[in-house]
Amino acid sequence: MTAELWAEQAGAPIPASPPARPDAGGQRQPARQSSLKRHNLALVLGELTGGSRLSRAQVAVRTGLTKATVSSLVDALLDAGLVVEEAPERGAVGRPASPLSLNRCGPAGLGVEVNVDYVAASVVDLTGEIRAHEVAGGDDRSVPPEHALRRAAALARRVERAAGADGLAVAGVGVALPGIVDADGRLRVAPNLPGWRDFPVVECLGGLLGRELPPTAAGNEANLAAMAELWYGGRPELRDFVYVSGEIGIGAGIVVDGRLFRGVRRSAGELGHVMVDSSGPLCGCGAYGCVEQFAGQEALLRSAGVPAEAGSALANPTGAVAELLGRARGGDPRTLEALRRAGTALGIAVSALVNLVDVPTVVLGGLHAQLAPYVASAVARELTDRVVGAESWPVRLEVSSLGPGAAVRGAAGSVVRDILDDPGAWLLGVLVGA
Amino acid sequence: MTAELWAEQAGAPIPASPPARPDAGGQRQPARQSSLKRHNLALVLGELTGGSRLSRAQVAVRTGLTKATVSSLVDALLDAGLVVEEAPERGAVGRPASPLSLNRCGPAGLGVEVNVDYVAASVVDLTGEIRAHEVAGGDDRSVPPEHALRRAAALARRVERAAGADGLAVAGVGVALPGIVDADGRLRVAPNLPGWRDFPVVECLGGLLGRELPPTAAGNEANLAAMAELWYGGRPELRDFVYVSGEIGIGAGIVVDGRLFRGVRRSAGELGHVMVDSSGPLCGCGAYGCVEQFAGQEALLRSAGVPAEAGSALANPTGAVAELLGRARGGDPRTLEALRRAGTALGIAVSALVNLVDVPTVVLGGLHAQLAPYVASAVARELTDRVVGAESWPVRLEVSSLGPGAAVRGAAGSVVRDILDDPGAWLLGVLVGA
Repeated sequence: MTAELWAEQAGAPIPASPPARPDAGGQRQPARQSSLKRHNLALVLGELTGGSRLSRAQVAVRTGLTKATVSSLVDALLDAGLVVEEAPERGAVGRPASPLSLNRCGPAGLGVEVNVDYVAASVVDLTGEIRAHEVAGGDDRSVPPEHALRRAAALARRVERAAGADGLAVAGVGVALPGIVDADGRLRVAPNLPGWRDFPVVECLGGLLGRELPPTAAGNEANLAAMAELWYGGRPELRDFVYVSGEIGIGAGIVVDGRLFRGVRRSAGELGHVMVDSSGPLCGCGAYGCVEQFAGQEALLRSAGVPAEAGSALANPTGAVAELLGRARGGDPRTLEALRRAGTALGIAVSALVNLVDVPTVVLGGLHAQLAPYVASAVARELTDRVVGAESWPVRLEVSSLGPGAAVRGAAGSVVRDILDDPGAWLLGVLVGA
Repeated sequence: MTAELWAEQAGAPIPASPPARPDAGGQRQPARQSSLKRHNLALVLGELTGGSRLSRAQVAVRTGLTKATVSSLVDALLDAGLVVEEAPERGAVGRPASPLSLNRCGPAGLGVEVNVDYVAASVVDLTGEIRAHEVAGGDDRSVPPEHALRRAAALARRVERAAGADGLAVAGVGVALPGIVDADGRLRVAPNLPGWRDFPVVECLGGLLGRELPPTAAGNEANLAAMAELWYGGRPELRDFVYVSGEIGIGAGIVVDGRLFRGVRRSAGELGHVMVDSSGPLCGCGAYGCVEQFAGQEALLRSAGVPAEAGSALANPTGAVAELLGRARGGDPRTLEALRRAGTALGIAVSALVNLVDVPTVVLGGLHAQLAPYVASAVARELTDRVVGAESWPVRLEVSSLGPGAAVRGAAGSVVRDILDDPGAWLLGVLVGA
């Protein structure tokens, strides 16, 4: 059990061989050969991610491998159920080509998200498409952690059954949590879930789900939403960005060169607790004036005068956030002023993030993606005013299209990305029945 | 000319061989052999950094290389003047050992710093010891960049001559600047030097210094001070920290796993422009309420009522900062209140940095190292109150012992670290007379 994967799975190359030890000479040859095959399997499969349909010959051209090598690798990937080969298509000239693509009925990833006011579960297939999804509102601050995890486990079983009926077998479970998660899947601290301090989420969820649905990793929800944006956001050129994940809490996932920047203790991106007004209200973290107290969901509803209720936009699309949006569309001055203030506060905090971490693009996700028409201009103004060098290099402000389910999709996606990044390990598991 | 080095020179391992290309087979063998020698040269030399004195036999044990391999590598390092071998010492038993150490008369690095109110130049030897140092106060905001660079070039020539008289030959010049520096050694933007926008500092300084003193890289002063802390700070176990560099401006260098985190456009760590009070004064960057306006040198002197003068503590140890410290020691209430407010402001900004980047240790440097007795407790209080998870993992607050010359020492040190990290490249240069 390890969450070490989170930082590595974003397309980090698998070395063709372990680093040579000085004077080790040729003794490592067998290991090198097997590592090379493992590398080449990932190379071939990598050509088929992002929706590509390619013939064996096209894969050979793109990878630089010989056709014979590609064919033996493709046969192994077909046997393992990771790719499918369609019936031959006759091209303009020459032999008919049989396009290869990722197997939509291959191993699937199951994501579980436990957040402050909802739990969610999703299954994604190898292509990252969501094949089953469930969400249930409910305030997890008012119940013991075990209770919330039982609700999450029940959702997980339902999406697993739904995916199974669709021909999919779940290969692993990823867990998204609204706080700092350690390498053992323990929630170290979550400012909005004070009763969960040092709670062993993965161990407890593993006990509830049993051996057939093993949690394989856990991570922070903003980080996983950022990975979902990287993998499934429809902007393959976007390799350096921060994803702002707004719910009741506010977090950020920092992606640099297509990899998650996680910090030293896996807690980088705690955007919600950047101070924006020292005379502001007390925050769940114990400090005053954190951005969450101005731009988080409950703070925003309070400031707009909309009655809050448990269940975020993900759990309850007709709830308080919909009411807030309706009032904004209707031009309600109090609501518009609350949104403008939230945008300014968020912009101040995100400017600090850009000044400190130096990423050229900010992607608004979750709550703030929904609210973008009313908050984005205030955020952009702060970025222009506060980011050093913004005159030369304007910060790009984008809005995520993934919707409020990005984190649970990222948690599910991390399972299939592990398989795509190292199909050799998956093949070995199939062979030895592990 | 490249500043790409800055991020790499912090002990990043040189791969023993280039990554194997799929199907490349054995054709790369000659390249591999030469890369392996290069790697092993660095490995041997690396054992001698940090002040170690080791015999060839001890180096062999520590590196895992054979004694014969070590001896041929050491001979090459001796020939190139990078190490020296002392007269044999008779040990308790066996043959007398001849300790090897870095050559204090080997190639040296020259650092040049152009800051807001002073210029400085230093020469360090291979061990990192400062062998010559000059500093001159003067407000660089009121003169054209060429004028300030001429003053800096004159200092550089003086320290070069002084080092030469001490038997040292300068191998390259590193430049430290108070702003965002691009890969071509151009100062893109420096909020406290508005007249320098997009100024080609390295090109201009190169013209002034001539071919015998070539600037090899340029970087941000806070980043270079952080590297000096990493290399020469006397805390070899400290591999993850932020170094807070306080002068008129405030910057931070972020070191993660012994490497500089520089961000996407080399501008990470712009700590000075984190907002701490939106009703605060206008900053040189164009925004309101930046931490520099509360905890930077001029802001602090103003708030304490001490007349400011050009020339920082580095240039003028008996100047305004000394007066501020004297008043603080005497218990002057206005001074103590100004320092307390500066510490709180700095603590708020540094808390944002720790929350966003997740580094466990903060090192106060420059001005704030001098002021530590009066600001550290306020900084520590904000870190305790504002950093998420600080109850479980308290943030360590340290004070740098390097003094105000850390940045110029880092700039000089970067030249010798390049040689130590890749002595093979240096040897090749000696051989072909480049």
